[in-house]
Amino acid sequence: MPRFRLTLEYDGSGFAGWQVQSGGQRTVQGALEDALFEVTGQHVRVAGAGRTDAGVHAEAQVASVELETDLDPATLLRALNARLPRDLAVVAAQAAATEFHARFSASGKLYRYQVWNGETRSPLREARWHAVRGELGVAAMRAAARRFEGEHDFAALQAAGSGVKDTVRELRRLEIHCPEPGEMVFDVEGSGFLRHMVRSVVGTLLEVGLGRRTPESIPALLASRDRARAGPTAPAAALTLVRVFYPD
Amino acid sequence: MPRFRLTLEYDGSGFAGWQVQSGGQRTVQGALEDALFEVTGQHVRVAGAGRTDAGVHAEAQVASVELETDLDPATLLRALNARLPRDLAVVAAQAAATEFHARFSASGKLYRYQVWNGETRSPLREARWHAVRGELGVAAMRAAARRFEGEHDFAALQAAGSGVKDTVRELRRLEIHCPEPGEMVFDVEGSGFLRHMVRSVVGTLLEVGLGRRTPESIPALLASRDRARAGPTAPAAALTLVRVFYPD
Repeated sequence: MPRFRLTLEYDGSGFAGWQVQSGGQRTVQGALEDALFEVTGQHVRVAGAGRTDAGVHAEAQVASVELETDLDPATLLRALNARLPRDLAVVAAQAAATEFHARFSASGKLYRYQVWNGETRSPLREARWHAVRGELGVAAMRAAARRFEGEHDFAALQAAGSGVKDTVRELRRLEIHCPEPGEMVFDVEGSGFLRHMVRSVVGTLLEVGLGRRTPESIPALLASRDRARAGPTAPAAALTLVRVFYPD
Repeated sequence: MPRFRLTLEYDGSGFAGWQVQSGGQRTVQGALEDALFEVTGQHVRVAGAGRTDAGVHAEAQVASVELETDLDPATLLRALNARLPRDLAVVAAQAAATEFHARFSASGKLYRYQVWNGETRSPLREARWHAVRGELGVAAMRAAARRFEGEHDFAALQAAGSGVKDTVRELRRLEIHCPEPGEMVFDVEGSGFLRHMVRSVVGTLLEVGLGRRTPESIPALLASRDRARAGPTAPAAALTLVRVFYPD
């Protein structure tokens, strides 16, 4: 059966995350599967590269799906976009190899987290920036970021109660940019991420920026494997899945 | 009485424009005057530099107001921001000279208009970008933009039925940038603007980009002073008042 690789952009604010849930909530996966059914008449299951949480956005999430269809990728893209809701679109579609799987074939992912640290509220950044009061020391945050980079056991930085056995991940890059005064943008690239990992790392870095913990304390935090010792999970609305990497 | 100059940021999507209206709709001016009343107990009228239309945003609108108060500008700013709704904030406050008037003292304004011309819909740009289908020829649009620049009678590009007598304005700069593939950003700076002028100019430039009119046709359009000959008024949600200039 032909297999497709679909690249998706969505505004996560209206979705209860990527994954179809039992409660019938509105999810990205569910909306995509509904549109695929309308186009092809087939009830299929799509695989997503990253199971983004409720409220998290995507510029280029990747999904893979097998379809019994003669449609070429460009036609499939147009047909899906005509049916998808306004907060979800397929921005690219291509034929994929039989063995391609959006999640298992991925070699890495890039997330972006946006913090607003201006002197006042910023109404135009209300929806997609996490507003932090108090001056953030970016030099200390960058020193702490260096200590998160590399291969570590990130058990202390995953959602409480996760049942994942292997909690070792490689955080390849954690950069902090300040494009405009008051803006602080985190680029977080890794081999893979535990649930809430990006947001817990950002929440911990913000505590470093506020002087509540030191860059030097990060190795002991990682070694503790204790979620209670990390910073709070930063809000979902300021997080975007920017890109998924594949070896090809 | 002490006079203040307030710089305002707002998300225009929830406001029926700047100006207080008889119908009791929610306006930026009304929300600011309500907060000023809560802080000072005085019913005052504020003057805005630009009377932005319903749906138009501002990064730095300027308002002037006289208040019988001992509050210093920094305290006034904090008190107002504690009371203003989430889609409106005072981002700067300063003492102003007695003769300062947000609108009459202004020497110019800068607006930004955002067009999305990507190959598919862009959910993350849904709220503040005007999506245009069909490939836009940016070279022709820039050639047309050159012909709008300078001092002209812009009667053909103002809202139908405007009663303004002097319709001559100086358009100092009309630049088109493409920061990311598919993005087209118009920077429009001028001495002052007629109602709907920026949006009518953009609507006309988009017709040039789509090949429906030529850059060479712009001088005749201006000379006609006929609104019916210009392009459509581009949607308000993609327009932002970026900056107001003063001689000081």
